[in-house]
Amino acid sequence: MRALANSRAASPPEWELESLGRRLPRSLRHARDFTTAQRIVATAASMFAEKGLAGARMDEIARVAKVNKALLYYYFRSKEELHRFVLETLLSQLRARVWDESNASLPARERLAAVIDNFFEFIRQHPNYPRLIQREMMSNGPNVEWIVSEYYKPLHARLVGLIEEGISSREFRRVDARNTALTVVSSMVFYFAAAPVLKRILGHDPLRPQEVARRRRAIQDLLEHGLLLPGAGMP
Amino acid sequence: MRALANSRAASPPEWELESLGRRLPRSLRHARDFTTAQRIVATAASMFAEKGLAGARMDEIARVAKVNKALLYYYFRSKEELHRFVLETLLSQLRARVWDESNASLPARERLAAVIDNFFEFIRQHPNYPRLIQREMMSNGPNVEWIVSEYYKPLHARLVGLIEEGISSREFRRVDARNTALTVVSSMVFYFAAAPVLKRILGHDPLRPQEVARRRRAIQDLLEHGLLLPGAGMP
Repeated sequence: MRALANSRAASPPEWELESLGRRLPRSLRHARDFTTAQRIVATAASMFAEKGLAGARMDEIARVAKVNKALLYYYFRSKEELHRFVLETLLSQLRARVWDESNASLPARERLAAVIDNFFEFIRQHPNYPRLIQREMMSNGPNVEWIVSEYYKPLHARLVGLIEEGISSREFRRVDARNTALTVVSSMVFYFAAAPVLKRILGHDPLRPQEVARRRRAIQDLLEHGLLLPGAGMP
Repeated sequence: MRALANSRAASPPEWELESLGRRLPRSLRHARDFTTAQRIVATAASMFAEKGLAGARMDEIARVAKVNKALLYYYFRSKEELHRFVLETLLSQLRARVWDESNASLPARERLAAVIDNFFEFIRQHPNYPRLIQREMMSNGPNVEWIVSEYYKPLHARLVGLIEEGISSREFRRVDARNTALTVVSSMVFYFAAAPVLKRILGHDPLRPQEVARRRRAIQDLLEHGLLLPGAGMP
């Protein structure tokens, strides 16, 4: 499918505050120093990814982010609030990134290729995301409910809808749309979530840029041959 | 690929003691009452899957398995030993099941179809396996080393080798064998490991037998079209 021509040059991770909407803590909505808040969130994301909610400590987050603890508690009243804010920041950016509304008029096959490219780009910018989410899902804690209802369920439904559209437009074979959507997601998510173990199995770091690029090409290639109807090749 | 004709009728989970080899605790090697040991292992597998090594308790395992605690400690000197034994029991059965040596003379495409069918059959018999292993991998604890070196690394190498064989025999397209192997594995493992979350996303239980059968068909179908060379269809 759409090849690597679309890869962007490496750009620093962005923190798109606007996309966060109503759940932004009041204190942050009026914060003048966004870079401080941004540093807190980036530090917290990496601590929570590494140690989990229970293992991470506010003292340490404050120290590594180089803010004093009073300011940290001014922004976030508790570790739980900070943790939830980190998850929402990532999930709302994932949603905005993966479903690029400017694509809406393209054929289904191009939109599916873009979903995959965009997911890879999101992960490159937010390497802590897979582990953070995997922890959340394993814990089966109170965040699973809203993560699923506000993000994963709608995202899954859109992906299934996109595949069904491609079947209707005779771009795709008549596949099981729901399972095909799950295969697309799992072939991306598993790779990143299992990266520490894959590193041992493969004998090299699967997160090296050229390995990630190979992974992306392999997924696009399998779908090009496994999903597209002959004659509906990529532009 | 090979359709559901090969599904077996439901049979009770088997505990293939012979396949365990050298790590069998001495006490168990001489145990006359295998059904007791079997009950302990089945109970422990489900407790460890649900609560993790730290959360599970030997008292509770003894109570639920209906053995007295002294006997439990006669078989397994510690919770860690029981935990490791549970993991090895499952992994050695996975290996024996997935690589069915009686298939060795079949064409690569049939052996790949069998690997997938056999993995699904293994999971049906051992529903605790995905969650147990996911916990282990997330913890990055002391078991990861031997699980990878004794099981996952050789299994991955064999799967890659099988795909390369299929490319040589002109059954498969010239794909990236390593990434194709990872896609095959992830499309199976992710489904089961993420089942509790998928249940919320899909609005039904993904582990219902007819849903598992659909999943298996969808994976075989994607590979049949995405991996097989035209003309090398399944028998």
